[in-house]
Amino acid sequence: MTTAIPNKDLAGQRIIIVGGGIGGASGALALALRGAEVELYEQHFEFKEVGAGLQIGPHGVKMLERWGLKEKAIAGGYLPDNMVFKDAVTAETILDMDFGEEFRERYGAPYLVIHRSDLLNLLLAEAEKHGAKLMTGYFATGAEEDEEGVTLTLKNLNDGEQLVEVRGDVLIGFDGTHSIFRQEIVQDAPVPSAYVAYRGTSNMENETEDAKKINSVVGYIGPRCHFIQYPLRQGEMLNQVAVFQSPRYLDALIDGSEVPEDWGNNEEFKDAFSHTNEYIQSRLGNMWLNNWWQMADREPLEDWVVNDRIIVMGDAAHPPLQYIASGAIMAMEDSEVFAVFAAEAAAQGELNWGTVLREVSDERAPRCNRIQTTSRFWGEMWHVDGVARHVRNEAFRQAERTGWYRYADWLWDYDPSARAYIENPELGKLPPALRDWEYLLHKIDRQREEGKEGAEITL
Amino acid sequence: MTTAIPNKDLAGQRIIIVGGGIGGASGALALALRGAEVELYEQHFEFKEVGAGLQIGPHGVKMLERWGLKEKAIAGGYLPDNMVFKDAVTAETILDMDFGEEFRERYGAPYLVIHRSDLLNLLLAEAEKHGAKLMTGYFATGAEEDEEGVTLTLKNLNDGEQLVEVRGDVLIGFDGTHSIFRQEIVQDAPVPSAYVAYRGTSNMENETEDAKKINSVVGYIGPRCHFIQYPLRQGEMLNQVAVFQSPRYLDALIDGSEVPEDWGNNEEFKDAFSHTNEYIQSRLGNMWLNNWWQMADREPLEDWVVNDRIIVMGDAAHPPLQYIASGAIMAMEDSEVFAVFAAEAAAQGELNWGTVLREVSDERAPRCNRIQTTSRFWGEMWHVDGVARHVRNEAFRQAERTGWYRYADWLWDYDPSARAYIENPELGKLPPALRDWEYLLHKIDRQREEGKEGAEITL
Repeated sequence: MTTAIPNKDLAGQRIIIVGGGIGGASGALALALRGAEVELYEQHFEFKEVGAGLQIGPHGVKMLERWGLKEKAIAGGYLPDNMVFKDAVTAETILDMDFGEEFRERYGAPYLVIHRSDLLNLLLAEAEKHGAKLMTGYFATGAEEDEEGVTLTLKNLNDGEQLVEVRGDVLIGFDGTHSIFRQEIVQDAPVPSAYVAYRGTSNMENETEDAKKINSVVGYIGPRCHFIQYPLRQGEMLNQVAVFQSPRYLDALIDGSEVPEDWGNNEEFKDAFSHTNEYIQSRLGNMWLNNWWQMADREPLEDWVVNDRIIVMGDAAHPPLQYIASGAIMAMEDSEVFAVFAAEAAAQGELNWGTVLREVSDERAPRCNRIQTTSRFWGEMWHVDGVARHVRNEAFRQAERTGWYRYADWLWDYDPSARAYIENPELGKLPPALRDWEYLLHKIDRQREEGKEGAEITL
Repeated sequence: MTTAIPNKDLAGQRIIIVGGGIGGASGALALALRGAEVELYEQHFEFKEVGAGLQIGPHGVKMLERWGLKEKAIAGGYLPDNMVFKDAVTAETILDMDFGEEFRERYGAPYLVIHRSDLLNLLLAEAEKHGAKLMTGYFATGAEEDEEGVTLTLKNLNDGEQLVEVRGDVLIGFDGTHSIFRQEIVQDAPVPSAYVAYRGTSNMENETEDAKKINSVVGYIGPRCHFIQYPLRQGEMLNQVAVFQSPRYLDALIDGSEVPEDWGNNEEFKDAFSHTNEYIQSRLGNMWLNNWWQMADREPLEDWVVNDRIIVMGDAAHPPLQYIASGAIMAMEDSEVFAVFAAEAAAQGELNWGTVLREVSDERAPRCNRIQTTSRFWGEMWHVDGVARHVRNEAFRQAERTGWYRYADWLWDYDPSARAYIENPELGKLPPALRDWEYLLHKIDRQREEGKEGAEITL
């Protein structure tokens, strides 16, 4: 049983968090709410999030609710009526997922969309309110555990890069996909997906009449591309994301030639949606052209524990592709699970950080593994061409006929107190029928390792 | 209303049929049953069919029933309990179509499988019984219409290739995919599908215990290949078909190099199923290796009428790929529709052959167009790889959950007297959502025409 929060279960525990994104902020809040002494260090001089809109499924809203932020998040965000998948070529609706009463009852929370910065600010303010200390301009260089705790070394960028040391009982590396703490577990590299995202927001006041009517998360999915629209900030803002496969990236991969640094550039963007319907094409002018995001994830990590005093969480542990909109939410779940497990142990007088970190990893790694893997699968499913696109469309129509909950329950119905994945690690695997699926990027790598090149490589 | 058959509605009408396969034999029977004077000319010295097993869906069994052959066909064939689709990689059942009472009531007939030769012999014997004259060793070289009828010129191969002329009121070119009559409508070529079939039959007595238990049409479908098994002759014979995409054919197409004549040869066959489950691989030794069938169809033909006295039907009009098992059945439907339309006109004293032929074409061409196109689509759907295979499997599972009848009604619920396609030619089109699908072979051709070659061509 979890004690009602806020409480003082972790009073006296000094917790160091490295990284002040949504993950670190969530961790600071979840632990401050249990009375821990939280210090958070962010390397930038201010807290900020890249990108604009963020989808928070009910698994995330339930975390916000635990932390007392649900109403505020809803007030500053937007509750879409539904999520509508459309074929990007024909604009036909292939799946309409209603987010009404039945949905909210089933998953115990609504589906929320919110501006990333708004959510980050909410989390930080609430963490601070509950006593967390938030520091910016501190660049972590490393940490050492000892019998008594952990020492983090930081460069204080506010003060001529002076090196400082801080002490804690435990340290959470929420330091993102290029985490220095992850490197102590595995020396891996990001896995670029060959897809790139363009983003854009606009003031709804200046928008077309059609756009003003959007009250859903609308996803146009099609061959090698997709396009997402939804409102933010109570409908005052329109958020758009256009994502496509970079032919130059893929060609380089297949030819074994050097990958161009600017893969996914404006030149490619211009052509990438030429096969989609006119409506999508008419919307692309609203996207920001100065930035694009090369989308990558990393291989799932089985064990997040660096040592008895240090763990990685959030993108440091499990950077996903975005296809099931669970990157930030995984970090929020990580935070709450960490806080629950630690608080429970402390309340029983058995707080051993090494044990807690292992339990957190045992619960969270399988779930995040499944989310990362499903995101890859889902992305491929969105982007199929030819006959497969029609079969996918029909599978989506069928999901609507028979109820699509069966595909979403595992994702959206998660209880951070239940230890479900510890009890049954099988939950972390794809359903048996999907286990021989091979991720496209793995398939290309495998063929290259088998000595194939160019046209010999099948996609 | 159709008069009960046999009748004499077409008494005095001389009908020439060129070609003595299942199509010609069906035509001879359907017309003899209306009292017409039928003469059928087959170029070979004996009537024969290539291949072994033939699936006769309820649309075909209903034709046999009209012709009084249903019981005999069932007695010599086999009524499978169901049709089971399995994933060729994992052997998981993804769709089980029950052919029991509900099925038979819905479609008005059972699902039958029968040896091709057995069906041909039944049709020929019955046609002969009703007065049709069946001639072998006559090679048709051409036909001319005139005001009064049609003159067919034949080489009599039984008599030193002596040229003979025969007269009729109307001529049906049932002369197969290389029809000389089709050439007078369109000078097209077969469209090879890049797939090749290996066949084999075995005596069930000598079969494994597993094989003896097969009471279904079992189709293993997988990446670039499939494998079919079903019993024949009341379970005394096991029929097997193994089909795969020829990499050499495809490579030649993509490279623009010469297509090897022996594409699909034993060498390719040996490798083609290496990614399928062990059971399939264990069965391949039973296939005949001396013959393989390069599978091709032709583009749908809008108009089958050569002139007021000559029409093409069967494979001459609409050679399909085999994926929805309707090649022979289309020819049977053609025959019955032709007979019904002609008999109705004659019974009303309005028999004008030009009008009848146009009506037959208007009714049949749209339906056969849809069958040909759906066969192509269905074939591609069977053979997808990667994520598409998993999505296809789920679409099949969903079809079982929601009832797969919706996909089959148009095919299996056909009434040759109803003129449904004349009244609504839209019936001949793919459902709207599928109309922008592009057949792989067309897609390759298009890209070549756009100047692409080799790796530039996407499959």
